Amino acid sequence: MRTHELVLQWIEKQLSDGDLALGGRLPGERAMAEQLQVSRTSVREAVRILEAMGVVRAGVGSGKDAGTVVIAEPGSALGSTLRLHVATRHLPVADIVETRVLLESWAAERAKVGVPELEEAAALLDHMDAAPDIDTFLGLDARFHVALAQAAGNAVVSAMMASLRGAIENYAGELTGNLPDWDATCARLRAEHRAILTAVNNHDGGKAAELVAAHIQGFYTEAGVGSDPSPN
Amino acid sequence: MRTHELVLQWIEKQLSDGDLALGGRLPGERAMAEQLQVSRTSVREAVRILEAMGVVRAGVGSGKDAGTVVIAEPGSALGSTLRLHVATRHLPVADIVETRVLLESWAAERAKVGVPELEEAAALLDHMDAAPDIDTFLGLDARFHVALAQAAGNAVVSAMMASLRGAIENYAGELTGNLPDWDATCARLRAEHRAILTAVNNHDGGKAAELVAAHIQGFYTEAGVGSDPSPN
Repeated sequence: MRTHELVLQWIEKQLSDGDLALGGRLPGERAMAEQLQVSRTSVREAVRILEAMGVVRAGVGSGKDAGTVVIAEPGSALGSTLRLHVATRHLPVADIVETRVLLESWAAERAKVGVPELEEAAALLDHMDAAPDIDTFLGLDARFHVALAQAAGNAVVSAMMASLRGAIENYAGELTGNLPDWDATCARLRAEHRAILTAVNNHDGGKAAELVAAHIQGFYTEAGVGSDPSPN
Repeated sequence: MRTHELVLQWIEKQLSDGDLALGGRLPGERAMAEQLQVSRTSVREAVRILEAMGVVRAGVGSGKDAGTVVIAEPGSALGSTLRLHVATRHLPVADIVETRVLLESWAAERAKVGVPELEEAAALLDHMDAAPDIDTFLGLDARFHVALAQAAGNAVVSAMMASLRGAIENYAGELTGNLPDWDATCARLRAEHRAILTAVNNHDGGKAAELVAAHIQGFYTEAGVGSDPSPN
């Protein structure tokens, strides 16, 4: 095992044993290097990997805000990993889209009425009605889908679902620019979001799942993504 | 943006543009440092992150085998990330198990008869009948589930499914030691695997999905994993 892997293993054990918890701080670089008898370079490499995994945020500033803090951001980390494997052509964009449909329709079917995430989803739809431009709309749109997925209460599904969107947002972002008529697409997306939320609030999970699947597939099909397994 | 992130971004662009492909080699550390005007330390940090993401394998040896090679191993990389987030208690083991059931039953329903992955799955069952010990059996068991998932033909679902198993294999491994009667459990698992494969080969995807779900839930329930959202 290489030395930076020793450091990773030690930190993982600290987390598993509960000696280090969410919001807690890693020991300083020098302290870890001394305790584990490794170079500070190896410690820094391990910390960089944990940052990339969404497990810590690197320290900035000094005083009580200094230090490297344990966080929980698996979604963006998984998304970066998937994005790189899309870049190598190992993971086809069509498979990413299909998996998004699978996870989001599962979550829509199980979304719980009355939870805060569902209220957030409703509020986001109002903001989207007033979005001044495409980028603002797409940012709110992403948050709506995440909130809806979170309403099902499975943190792993939520993280994976967020990662899939992150993995191909470049494609989606580029392609919305090419849509023949953004205003028409935008109006359709807004109506579809409302219909999905209504189905959930009416306790009609099956309908919500169906609508989410059609909504996601429709968007990527219109944007020309996902039907072609090799979009590059 | 920090310097190691510049390196990551440059490598991602090389991959997206097709200037660097699966099986290809990264430029040497010194060459990348000179080209991007960054320190060799920053280059090495970026390469360590790509290794952790399953995008490259670090160079060993010299001559034609030297250098850092582009690979495609998202499953183990996603698994390490999820495992760390299980360690921080952000991702409950119960949610991991539930997501495994979701992905594997989806894949079993869509497994294609006659593809090489399904033949591999069948061969693995024969090897499991002759497994000399628990660890060998569990290793083959993991490969059977991966092969079955791959038979559905979605690389993203396969990678995610493999990662979920990796995220909690410590729990599963520890707990099989605590099972009251391994021989009985093993016989049951073998029979269940056969039944799943038979359903797939009979083109009864619905039945295969049902059997896989019951098989996974049964294993974790017997081992005491997954019913408790906070197993530590």
